[in-house]
Amino acid sequence: MGTPELISPRSPRVTAARRLAKRAFRSKEHRFLAEGPQAVREAVAHRGEDGQPALVELFTTPEAAERYADLLDAAREAGARVLYAPDDVVADLSDTVTPQGLLGVCRFLDAPFEDVLKAGPRLVAVLSNVRDPGNAGTVLRCADAAGADAVILTDASVDLYNPKAVRASVGSLFHLPVAVGVPVEQAVQGLRDTGVRILAADGAGDSDLDDELDAGTMSGPTAWIFGNEAWGLPEETRALADAVVRVPIHGKAESLNLATAAAVCLYASARAQRVRP
Amino acid sequence: MGTPELISPRSPRVTAARRLAKRAFRSKEHRFLAEGPQAVREAVAHRGEDGQPALVELFTTPEAAERYADLLDAAREAGARVLYAPDDVVADLSDTVTPQGLLGVCRFLDAPFEDVLKAGPRLVAVLSNVRDPGNAGTVLRCADAAGADAVILTDASVDLYNPKAVRASVGSLFHLPVAVGVPVEQAVQGLRDTGVRILAADGAGDSDLDDELDAGTMSGPTAWIFGNEAWGLPEETRALADAVVRVPIHGKAESLNLATAAAVCLYASARAQRVRP
Repeated sequence: MGTPELISPRSPRVTAARRLAKRAFRSKEHRFLAEGPQAVREAVAHRGEDGQPALVELFTTPEAAERYADLLDAAREAGARVLYAPDDVVADLSDTVTPQGLLGVCRFLDAPFEDVLKAGPRLVAVLSNVRDPGNAGTVLRCADAAGADAVILTDASVDLYNPKAVRASVGSLFHLPVAVGVPVEQAVQGLRDTGVRILAADGAGDSDLDDELDAGTMSGPTAWIFGNEAWGLPEETRALADAVVRVPIHGKAESLNLATAAAVCLYASARAQRVRP
Repeated sequence: MGTPELISPRSPRVTAARRLAKRAFRSKEHRFLAEGPQAVREAVAHRGEDGQPALVELFTTPEAAERYADLLDAAREAGARVLYAPDDVVADLSDTVTPQGLLGVCRFLDAPFEDVLKAGPRLVAVLSNVRDPGNAGTVLRCADAAGADAVILTDASVDLYNPKAVRASVGSLFHLPVAVGVPVEQAVQGLRDTGVRILAADGAGDSDLDDELDAGTMSGPTAWIFGNEAWGLPEETRALADAVVRVPIHGKAESLNLATAAAVCLYASARAQRVRP
């Protein structure tokens, strides 16, 4: 196909993509950036409710275009616009220090909370006041791995489409429904009304995971509320839950970090829901 | 007590402390840096085999000295040298962007591998080729929380005393014996000889955690080998284990990250060892 023409760094397409580094512009455009071949592949494969792929536009360096020729074909087939860009333009749009030459502009993917409820979820992670995008992405990845049916980011949480959250989710953002901007009270009420038991994960919980597992109370539909990485869950949020549960600390550590605690809780639920007593 | 005299930025004490940012100097001096009031408190309380506290020297800003007066007293009582330093000296020695005005110089804490074995450990985490200091520290924290009796860093792993590892361990470095620089074959052989079952954690494992739990094979003394964050465990390390076990992936995620996978594995063992069938 010869040498492709490279887009100018001053092109309106580049300017528009660059602005997506900011939450305000993401929210306005309902678009976000996904970096690297793995995320772009997910964005091509993902279909929204309207049957449209998540990927809208793909910036590629000439080198990446050669290496990922199949992916470019798939992107074009899915209707995405493929733009060849100089290395420094892709690097500039990228949030990482070692960009892989591919950068996708994607449609927002989040699901309406009502749809999450209608699907009758059995395992849900609710992130309340989680502020670090890397943590949010990692918990999303854990929820996906543990087989959660949905993730909910409450209105006071970090932006799901923050580049660091997208990257830390390692594709999981594209795998399961995520509802965003739901007030925690509304999340709890909606889930409870569909028969989901609400557990607040907190180091000062009344019971620990082992108590719950021993009592057999974790085999039904369950939503876990995980709080802020530094200060946990405030009293008013803990009060919304059916139980406040801590991960048992068998040694001398004061606590676990958010992502590892969430992994332990979600996997405890996954096992409790699969084992018949 | 009046205004304390501040140490000069060119003092040999400051120069010696600054050099501890480098692994080569840490290894030579058998000293490392621990930042912030929590770590310093642990370093004061920790006693080595010779009964000596881990803390040797404490740099403090005048402001931190006022805020943590009790801690300075405890440090002095434990025999540590307390040095008042200008804010910028402590900031310069610090690895964090928001130093808390306290920086301790500590003795190495690691335990001889033979001592780990002699204690008859029931739960051990072996880190093989783990290269990211934050990951190593986080796994150490998880191991502590899950009640592990020891952690082993194999000879190809990151330095336990890297400031990022120390910080990510959130004090756990001071809580349980850590043996460093042990070749993985020797670690496996030694543990096996004391009756510990060796499990290699790997996404391509033959069995998954649920299989092991269902089979009741996890209630005895167990050591988990965790591999490199990017490429996992090489075939020759997997071959050393009694079983290669994966965390079950119930959703569409490809994998978990190292720390969350380690948390799930270690907590599964902790529970299996505590529950009587």
